[in-house]
Amino acid sequence: MSSQIDPEGLVAAVVAGDRRSLARLITVVEEGRAGSEDALRLAHARRGDAHRIGITGAPGSGKSTLTDGLLTLLRGRNVEVGVLAVDPTSPFSGGAVLGDRVRMQDHALDTGVYIRSMASRGHLGGLSAAAPKALVVMDAAGLPVLLIETVGVGQDEVEIVSAAETVVVVLNPGWGDGIQAAKAGILEIADIFVVNKADRPGLREVVADIEHMLSLAGESPWVPPIVTATAVAGEGIAELWDAIEQHRRHLEGEGLAVRRRTRRRAELRVAVTERLRKAAAAETSRHGDLTTKVEEGEIDPWTAARQIVAG
Amino acid sequence: MSSQIDPEGLVAAVVAGDRRSLARLITVVEEGRAGSEDALRLAHARRGDAHRIGITGAPGSGKSTLTDGLLTLLRGRNVEVGVLAVDPTSPFSGGAVLGDRVRMQDHALDTGVYIRSMASRGHLGGLSAAAPKALVVMDAAGLPVLLIETVGVGQDEVEIVSAAETVVVVLNPGWGDGIQAAKAGILEIADIFVVNKADRPGLREVVADIEHMLSLAGESPWVPPIVTATAVAGEGIAELWDAIEQHRRHLEGEGLAVRRRTRRRAELRVAVTERLRKAAAAETSRHGDLTTKVEEGEIDPWTAARQIVAG
Repeated sequence: MSSQIDPEGLVAAVVAGDRRSLARLITVVEEGRAGSEDALRLAHARRGDAHRIGITGAPGSGKSTLTDGLLTLLRGRNVEVGVLAVDPTSPFSGGAVLGDRVRMQDHALDTGVYIRSMASRGHLGGLSAAAPKALVVMDAAGLPVLLIETVGVGQDEVEIVSAAETVVVVLNPGWGDGIQAAKAGILEIADIFVVNKADRPGLREVVADIEHMLSLAGESPWVPPIVTATAVAGEGIAELWDAIEQHRRHLEGEGLAVRRRTRRRAELRVAVTERLRKAAAAETSRHGDLTTKVEEGEIDPWTAARQIVAG
Repeated sequence: MSSQIDPEGLVAAVVAGDRRSLARLITVVEEGRAGSEDALRLAHARRGDAHRIGITGAPGSGKSTLTDGLLTLLRGRNVEVGVLAVDPTSPFSGGAVLGDRVRMQDHALDTGVYIRSMASRGHLGGLSAAAPKALVVMDAAGLPVLLIETVGVGQDEVEIVSAAETVVVVLNPGWGDGIQAAKAGILEIADIFVVNKADRPGLREVVADIEHMLSLAGESPWVPPIVTATAVAGEGIAELWDAIEQHRRHLEGEGLAVRRRTRRRAELRVAVTERLRKAAAAETSRHGDLTTKVEEGEIDPWTAARQIVAG
């Protein structure tokens, strides 16, 4: 909440490709500093046509290694890439073991890569409010591919990843219970399945499980392909990228427009909720007496909420 | 949103121990039907002194089997128990394999047990708004022990489980990455660790990992014990319950009061946010023109949100 920024100058620098300005602008919009709303509006007007790719799966499924593999592949083809990591287990967001972090350093000096991490445990709703802003800014910076890595179990994470144009769900062999978990929500949003750690026992079973689930889903213009990978050995990365590009081509035209409308509607809902949440915090702190009564159990929270937010 | 209820009559029936009324009242408050606010206020006034025990861990870690084991143990001691399952992988909430579901049937005819499940994937914030209401109602019904089972990865789930007086975090041997995930948030809220599936390889390593983390946490009046269990064989359940009771005794007095104040403050925050969210949905639908402009990318979501929610 410090110094006033120059929204036009900052956005212009971001659009011109200055990476330090990109980092600064994301911080500014995340923190909601003075001028950030103008900056966000300007960045939105300059947004490009980035392909947003969500990569989601349980902790330990190998999302980061797949993300790293895609980064290396794309940089080898001279494609610039942005990464938004909202996964507490990701080396991109600082939660990983030393080996992973060292590996990440490979990209640290490459200006064709921009990596941004977000703490997955902010205040309620903070994550789903901040992530779309960061993505708009990264898009305005002209990065054509945005990889969004998230653990994808909470509602926030699902909301974030379903804003991607292509959603990659990462599973592993031997995931009896994992499949159960995934069934509940993640599978619905999958455009592509990756069975990573394919060298482990149980590969055929998990593939058969996914195929069975897909067969129950009924007809669809896009049947999610199942890519097998051993990301740590670099195997399956090229196949995954092919599947992502095929999905992008499948979406071209009306499909893409529908997804983007859906995403923007979700962004609006999150933005409205964020403003309301701030209003709620302000209102609640103005009612310190009521808060005390709730804490002491003298009044129930719902009656108090009704007094704080009339209507 | 159907027929008007009789809040006083319904709450009185719940307090008197009628289980069908209990089920009905939870549905009423979840759906926010006419009269539900009065019912919630009355139930809150009648709330007892239930011990809320959160059981959290990754999908497949064995939370349900532990919950089932605690149920069986407590029923053997003639203690009545309520279960709130907000875990998509739980047999209690309908996400489990056939064997688990059959096992759950053991409790179906026991009126000393009340099991309620909640879909983990409602609209944003729906879960954390509904769970505390259900718990207040179950408490008013006189159930002395409430087990709250949740996958505990998303912000909603963490918010729910941290409202418990005792939080049990379930881990498994061989969880290199799982520990990483847990570090990011779940470990902070743990009062007790259970290493379940203790018959698997890697038990000593995971126990050592937890001990190491605890040693880094600094001094504390309560050091979380580490219980090893093989819940599927019924091993470690009695030890887990002993640890839970010890924690409850530890909390008696000021500790318990502090936790409850914190919980009620969180309940108030969630209740205020819920009311504001409803207001936001209503406001947004009143601004159909703005929504369309956002969908088409003509205006950015944040500028639109500012127009919808002034201030």
